[in-house]
Amino acid sequence: MHNQDKKNIENQLRLLKEKAGSHSPSISSLKSEIEGLEIKIDACFLSNPYATELFFEYLYNDLILNNRLKEVLEFYPSQNRIIGSILATTLQVSSNNVFIGNGATEIIQALIHNFTRRKILINLPTFSPYYEFVFPNVEIVYNYLDKNEDFVLDKEIYLKKVKQEKPDTVVFITPNNPDGGYIPKNDLEELLKDLKDVEQVIIDESFIHFAYENDEMNPLSYGSFVEKYPNVIIVKSFSKDFGIAGIRAGYALMAKEKVDHLLRHGYLWNVSSLAEYFFRLLADQSFLEKYEKIRVRYIKETRNFYELLKKIPEIKIYPSKANFFLIELLNSLEPDEMTFRLLLDHGIYCRSCRDKIGLKGNFIRIASRKNEENQMITSALKEVVQSRIR
Amino acid sequence: MHNQDKKNIENQLRLLKEKAGSHSPSISSLKSEIEGLEIKIDACFLSNPYATELFFEYLYNDLILNNRLKEVLEFYPSQNRIIGSILATTLQVSSNNVFIGNGATEIIQALIHNFTRRKILINLPTFSPYYEFVFPNVEIVYNYLDKNEDFVLDKEIYLKKVKQEKPDTVVFITPNNPDGGYIPKNDLEELLKDLKDVEQVIIDESFIHFAYENDEMNPLSYGSFVEKYPNVIIVKSFSKDFGIAGIRAGYALMAKEKVDHLLRHGYLWNVSSLAEYFFRLLADQSFLEKYEKIRVRYIKETRNFYELLKKIPEIKIYPSKANFFLIELLNSLEPDEMTFRLLLDHGIYCRSCRDKIGLKGNFIRIASRKNEENQMITSALKEVVQSRIR
Repeated sequence: MHNQDKKNIENQLRLLKEKAGSHSPSISSLKSEIEGLEIKIDACFLSNPYATELFFEYLYNDLILNNRLKEVLEFYPSQNRIIGSILATTLQVSSNNVFIGNGATEIIQALIHNFTRRKILINLPTFSPYYEFVFPNVEIVYNYLDKNEDFVLDKEIYLKKVKQEKPDTVVFITPNNPDGGYIPKNDLEELLKDLKDVEQVIIDESFIHFAYENDEMNPLSYGSFVEKYPNVIIVKSFSKDFGIAGIRAGYALMAKEKVDHLLRHGYLWNVSSLAEYFFRLLADQSFLEKYEKIRVRYIKETRNFYELLKKIPEIKIYPSKANFFLIELLNSLEPDEMTFRLLLDHGIYCRSCRDKIGLKGNFIRIASRKNEENQMITSALKEVVQSRIR
Repeated sequence: MHNQDKKNIENQLRLLKEKAGSHSPSISSLKSEIEGLEIKIDACFLSNPYATELFFEYLYNDLILNNRLKEVLEFYPSQNRIIGSILATTLQVSSNNVFIGNGATEIIQALIHNFTRRKILINLPTFSPYYEFVFPNVEIVYNYLDKNEDFVLDKEIYLKKVKQEKPDTVVFITPNNPDGGYIPKNDLEELLKDLKDVEQVIIDESFIHFAYENDEMNPLSYGSFVEKYPNVIIVKSFSKDFGIAGIRAGYALMAKEKVDHLLRHGYLWNVSSLAEYFFRLLADQSFLEKYEKIRVRYIKETRNFYELLKKIPEIKIYPSKANFFLIELLNSLEPDEMTFRLLLDHGIYCRSCRDKIGLKGNFIRIASRKNEENQMITSALKEVVQSRIR
């Protein structure tokens, strides 16, 4: 690619990024709006690529080979409660506690618009919808996670803040986005005991399928807290673990009264029929068994990726129990510059964290992909940080 | 089928219908929950079956034969504003006025939750989300359309009601659901001139592709009112005209300030990637040309269906410019009984209107399908109304 072409693409990228606000432009926007741009590896979107393949294999057999796709697209999906009761059986929870969402972002919007009345306490850095979706009459207060402490939540400081600020809603994302920090289940439960006066405790476990507490790597969930602590709301995206962001599927678990409140005035047919197909597929034991193997395999490859990245002296990589790494560029290379170089010179799309509030320093976020892709990402990253001349 | 089996299925149907509230259980719920039920014709869902075929033909070529479906399902769709600007170009409107919705129901929910503060005036009979989604602190007032006047809106009575009740939101569905009544564009504009003090005038034109003002059958839309009357909001589902309810796609046109208000705090990635594929397909001239032929063909077949139904003396069929007919059963056959007989004895799924508020009498609603299916529906209907013995 000529330097002039690169410059042009870089300018188009800046414009698209500006349009996309605090998020990354989608792959489909990038491809359709920037001619000549080649994306070889998407390390921006945080998904398990093996799971996408598995899902697609089932979808291909069930809907395409069986000629059922047209029918699926033609007719209305089932209502929220029907799909909720199917998922409840799979999760072995009461269907009264299940709310089906058009992706986790719709759920975050629903929770914050319907239940947060006065003040919300958010840990920073975070996933931006948690503060962006808040209505202007609600106050936002932040608790800053310290990079020098590897973004680990300090319980004392946190509880002091809660006592002082008296928020009606607090949010934990665990593993957290963008740093991957994980709060062990027992530690979080200790915290919940001290948060009984907070009306809503939102626990976003969208990345929990990538977390593990020991080498057995059994599946984790904070879901059981909902029965024990009536103020707890679990938010879960399926975009990441199953690698299907395009179909928009997620769910929440919360007290029955809250589910009823949401469904009484809306969210009737809020997921597509393909999402319904996915929710029904989750009840298929053969699918789940195959998924479980793929989940563990992907965690192991992600750990290998961490070891590779750790060897690059020009970057600092933070501990993560998610499927991505927050990386600090130590040689004062700017994050936007870094992502442009990775994209234009190596075809690797990753996330500049320049616009992530509460992050001081030059940070990028890189998703783990398949082993061979992770090796390519590592080499490219090394090359860019070690040769800063264009 | 044995009578006992029929009785069992009938009971299961009643239960499912109860669960589905004021809507019909989806085809996929019916099929998965009632064993032995065979649905040959879905005359409940209000769609153009030729359009589904056309859409699927494009999707098959673009995504399946080209192996792009996996990629589409894997990655995030573009944001609301990006898809909105693509649709704006197709519709030749300003992208500032476009809001993309996860089906029209999400849009109705967004409008009523965000803009309706005091009182909403709704014509009855209507599409139930318009009153169901209203928050308890908002008053609902109804204007009854008279079956003896073929559900035609009486302008004098209507304006008197507006003057008296001072609603901040009024709703027109035209063609109306469930009767198909259409307000000619000029008549509606006359009405708009007298409604300038109402903060929101919602015009739901979800069925407008099936309407016509003369035999040329040119495509109609009230969209141009948005620029002229800043209180007008156009709501449009794509589920019906394009026969793709499963992908959840719709849009609204409204004042820029209202779009900005909605997008400032939500609706970020609210449609699936398949919906994005559809929105992008709407910019394809070859697709649109083929669609236009199919649209006119379907209108003609729907008119033929009307002529067939009109010949059955035991029913009264109301004039409709939509793709369905509201049918009154004159021989005191109950609507639920009628729909069970059609489904169990003939495999035809249609809509009982027993639960439609503001409708006095025994009504069912039947969608127009393909010519040959419409003939089958007519014969079945005739058989059921003319022999009332099981």
